[in-house]
Amino acid sequence: MPAANGMPNSAHGPQKSCFPLSLDNINPKVKEAQYAVRGEIVIRAKEIEDEIASGKSDKPFKTIMYCNIGNPQQLGQHPVTYFRQVLALCDYPELIESGKAEGVFPSDVIERARRYLAAMPGGTGAYSDSRGAMVLRKDIAKGIEERDGFPCNPDFLYLTDGASQGVHAMMRLLLRDDKDAILVPIPQYPLYSATLALYGGHLLPYYLHEETGWSLSVDDLKSQTYKARSEGRHVRALVVINPGNPTGQVLSVENQKEILEFCRDEGIVLMADEVYQANIYKQGKTFTSFKKVLSQMDSKDVTLASMHSISKGFYGECGRRGGYLELMNVNPDVVSEFYKLASINLCSNLNGQICMALVMNPPREGEPSYKLYAEERQSLLDSLKRRAIKLHKTLSSLEGVTCTEPEGALYAMPQIRLPKAALEAAKKTGKAPDFFYCKQLLEETGIVTVPGSGFKQEEGTFHFRTTILVPEKDTDEVAKRLVKFHNDFLAKYGEPEQ
Amino acid sequence: MPAANGMPNSAHGPQKSCFPLSLDNINPKVKEAQYAVRGEIVIRAKEIEDEIASGKSDKPFKTIMYCNIGNPQQLGQHPVTYFRQVLALCDYPELIESGKAEGVFPSDVIERARRYLAAMPGGTGAYSDSRGAMVLRKDIAKGIEERDGFPCNPDFLYLTDGASQGVHAMMRLLLRDDKDAILVPIPQYPLYSATLALYGGHLLPYYLHEETGWSLSVDDLKSQTYKARSEGRHVRALVVINPGNPTGQVLSVENQKEILEFCRDEGIVLMADEVYQANIYKQGKTFTSFKKVLSQMDSKDVTLASMHSISKGFYGECGRRGGYLELMNVNPDVVSEFYKLASINLCSNLNGQICMALVMNPPREGEPSYKLYAEERQSLLDSLKRRAIKLHKTLSSLEGVTCTEPEGALYAMPQIRLPKAALEAAKKTGKAPDFFYCKQLLEETGIVTVPGSGFKQEEGTFHFRTTILVPEKDTDEVAKRLVKFHNDFLAKYGEPEQ
Repeated sequence: MPAANGMPNSAHGPQKSCFPLSLDNINPKVKEAQYAVRGEIVIRAKEIEDEIASGKSDKPFKTIMYCNIGNPQQLGQHPVTYFRQVLALCDYPELIESGKAEGVFPSDVIERARRYLAAMPGGTGAYSDSRGAMVLRKDIAKGIEERDGFPCNPDFLYLTDGASQGVHAMMRLLLRDDKDAILVPIPQYPLYSATLALYGGHLLPYYLHEETGWSLSVDDLKSQTYKARSEGRHVRALVVINPGNPTGQVLSVENQKEILEFCRDEGIVLMADEVYQANIYKQGKTFTSFKKVLSQMDSKDVTLASMHSISKGFYGECGRRGGYLELMNVNPDVVSEFYKLASINLCSNLNGQICMALVMNPPREGEPSYKLYAEERQSLLDSLKRRAIKLHKTLSSLEGVTCTEPEGALYAMPQIRLPKAALEAAKKTGKAPDFFYCKQLLEETGIVTVPGSGFKQEEGTFHFRTTILVPEKDTDEVAKRLVKFHNDFLAKYGEPEQ
Repeated sequence: MPAANGMPNSAHGPQKSCFPLSLDNINPKVKEAQYAVRGEIVIRAKEIEDEIASGKSDKPFKTIMYCNIGNPQQLGQHPVTYFRQVLALCDYPELIESGKAEGVFPSDVIERARRYLAAMPGGTGAYSDSRGAMVLRKDIAKGIEERDGFPCNPDFLYLTDGASQGVHAMMRLLLRDDKDAILVPIPQYPLYSATLALYGGHLLPYYLHEETGWSLSVDDLKSQTYKARSEGRHVRALVVINPGNPTGQVLSVENQKEILEFCRDEGIVLMADEVYQANIYKQGKTFTSFKKVLSQMDSKDVTLASMHSISKGFYGECGRRGGYLELMNVNPDVVSEFYKLASINLCSNLNGQICMALVMNPPREGEPSYKLYAEERQSLLDSLKRRAIKLHKTLSSLEGVTCTEPEGALYAMPQIRLPKAALEAAKKTGKAPDFFYCKQLLEETGIVTVPGSGFKQEEGTFHFRTTILVPEKDTDEVAKRLVKFHNDFLAKYGEPEQ
């Protein structure tokens, strides 16, 4: 094999002006888009991880703790057994056909895989309908009906490679030019700012009120909408993330109703990001879907796109990339265009499609797998709750830090008041002050978080987002590292500003 | 459960002007994009299929034969056993941990799954690096090195949900506005015209020469490029599909070298769609990757994006959605932007990633699974070859039809000369003449094909594309139906035009 093909050198070495692509001539929208959840701090964390692995690290820690992203199984969370059993049989049906699955897999697992395979010609190896396999959409529709108590038509369900793909599709459908604006909560999940940048739309911010538990005020939606319109913008859609990411609040039905009325009155599409619907921790709080609230209202003329995912909840099947988008109240000719858009991507992956159906239609009481499934679910949800409470307590104990209690989702979003000297030091590095803090946190402790600036935040405030996903056996150690880091930081830079 | 939530009615019934979205206010680029492979004829085929299933059909056939799309397992092709075994164990590692896999799965399957799981924290349940899991990219790099005899750096491999996602990412990176043009072969795979429409670029056509086996002339590339430049366009990239889709030709190394020289001299990025690299049928023809040809050239300054997929070849794992894109000769700051773009989508699905690694690094001679793997591969490739030859013979026998011999890929693309009366009848329906032919073919025989107009074609010529994937047990019957239909069509509309 020849020693050089020009590739590693040319792509890693000094820039060669003879290559046609440069930062000056690629699509500027790509440069504009930012995604802090996998940004500079994570890239640095991977470098440190490599240094540790190759024995070249002088860091006082041996492991990197990835708290930047809701990726529970990466941190050791066990998958739901039933899901994996059905998936394995769908991937390798020979185990059923040969009879080898008997005795190794519970009978309801075999039955489920058999039912899916019988209704999907080519099984997991064939492209399905662009919206997803009908047998799976029917199971999901059943789950949605049981959740809400209202009918669900599988013709309006689109199975997607994670909820992100649903967001992409909606942005693609809605955005014509930079006069088109979408209302996005601040702080926001950066997928929204990134896709708005990529599709060339305008991010119209509405601020969540941290002092009242990151509450959402419809008056803010109105004032932002009217202001934007007076500036010539078309407000196409409103994004609501419930439970909130990164903010963790759970909306009340009363609030949801107001939001829907706002959308109806203003002719604005509601994009409901409901991927954390199974993650509720606070006593007395419950998740209610926007679809349910809308279905209960007298006037139902709101166009709604509701999105869900297999990546979150207690199941956390991130790597499988499954999700759905349900359309409601869309004209048939627009539905046809959305269907065509899905067809250009052929279909989402079948393994993720199946897992989405299992999430929405899990084992039932009386079925052989139910007991284990219910135990796993309870144990995972209890553990997430304990961790949310403990993390909130630790963060609240830090000097200069206030942390809204996470009612749901997988994150805490503390506000940090930073010492003046730290603000000045950050300024010198050309980075946002919370980036400066999070970067040092990584270098000193191996804990990876995301600076609040990556989510956008109210001017003059600083935050960071951390997941609640540190394994329970490690939470004490991580809390200790975090407290020590914070105290050292204050010792170095002085008392926080008030 | 309340009987109505407004949804099925409102989305299926008469249009209600109160919904905010209409064809007049959605993104016009979505309306412009077309994807005939899953267009109107397929939607009609599904209707007929439903009618047959519910006993309401009066058609003279009992099954729909989907020859519109390269989806082999949908038509009964058996998956490669080794791939499915490894996938099942990766989805449900408990089989390994409990010892239950022993004796049921070959030892090299267990070993492979163990190796992958050990190197992927969280296994198939966790997001991987945005480019794909390193252990899998390393296996793929190894396969590319063995294929080409030149080094492959896994840092420049991006694992994607099928090759389509790689095309999307390149279009996104390259296209700034409608002055940016991309050279696309005509006939083309409609993913290219669709993504160009969606991302707002200009499709700059170069025509393949049907009379010389759909050959590619670099003179055409030059004249189109110079003409486009004189009109103020920026020619950013050249798409080459090798082996060709829908055209089936396999390029010679000499031709590939000329193409690369053209790209180098003109500063044009080469997008090499090489998803049919394992599908070669014609004696004496072999697949050579553009990367290999480029690596052998004196001057290697060509920016190349080479794309591959698990959906085609003899494995045909369409539903799994796996693929890769390899970048070569790209400046590091542009690579960083491409990496960021991948990060916004988090990662491709792990099941598809694993399958791509298995395709590129299959069992080796001497390993327990090798014999069965080699048998399955040979048997599938032999069968595809027999079916390509037989289909070509059938199509060539039809009056007024000429069909270039498919040297590779999964399709035949016959040219049909239509009777004058048929052209007139088509005109009355407002549809392209080849659509008119394919639509009747479906209605009369249940065979689903794609009209040549969906791929674009030389003005005044008519074609259709059919896959070679009809199962061998059915090829005689399908050929009989096709011949009868064609003869009846001519009997009805008269002799074809010359």
